[in-house]
Amino acid sequence: MNLRYAPPAGRSWNVLVAECPSRTSLARIANKWTAMVITVLENGPMRFGDIRSALEGISAKVLTDTLRDLERDGMLTREVYGEIPPRVEYELTPLGRTLIEPLAVLCRWAEQHIPEVLAARDAYDDR
Amino acid sequence: MNLRYAPPAGRSWNVLVAECPSRTSLARIANKWTAMVITVLENGPMRFGDIRSALEGISAKVLTDTLRDLERDGMLTREVYGEIPPRVEYELTPLGRTLIEPLAVLCRWAEQHIPEVLAARDAYDDR
Repeated sequence: MNLRYAPPAGRSWNVLVAECPSRTSLARIANKWTAMVITVLENGPMRFGDIRSALEGISAKVLTDTLRDLERDGMLTREVYGEIPPRVEYELTPLGRTLIEPLAVLCRWAEQHIPEVLAARDAYDDR
Repeated sequence: MNLRYAPPAGRSWNVLVAECPSRTSLARIANKWTAMVITVLENGPMRFGDIRSALEGISAKVLTDTLRDLERDGMLTREVYGEIPPRVEYELTPLGRTLIEPLAVLCRWAEQHIPEVLAARDAYDDR
């Protein structure tokens, strides 16, 4: 085992521990833009503009930051093709693909349960 | 069907549509603090101080905001017991309990894959 990437002796990785690096990874994946980017990339590589169109309403800056953070965490690759104009494609890595299903579950939950959530919000705001 | 909580005619709820309310629900659940709060409440009602101790490092303000937002969205209840000093307990609703497993999956993912993520970050930063 590479000790550089092992938890301290006698400890396990634990998101509930403030300084555990796994919490930074949880922050990255438990994020609405991450959930949307990973699910739209499910079917293969896409260009920046196509991802941005699929994720209606995301700013170029937020998408740029999200893609760079996911690339840094090993979830996707960024490939630049030397064409004129240059073509840049983003594609999920095998690690990133392991998140497709868990994050799709969250997107489906949000869509399936929004009537209950809206009713709860109205009841709360009427109190 | 209560039309107040139905999507526009001929449309489905869709997190990819910028103005769809389901995106606000996704933002609430795809959040690291939500993931941690929901998973620690799995075993029953807890007091504010106990939740805060379990989620090492969370500020009182962020926890207060997170709990209020989850209560507003119908995911937990806040019960005040008229004791001296007053006791306040938070408990997952049946709706909130449907999120335990999907969010526990994300927490476990973060813990299981952090060695790969750390290695990817180092490789990225060394480029």
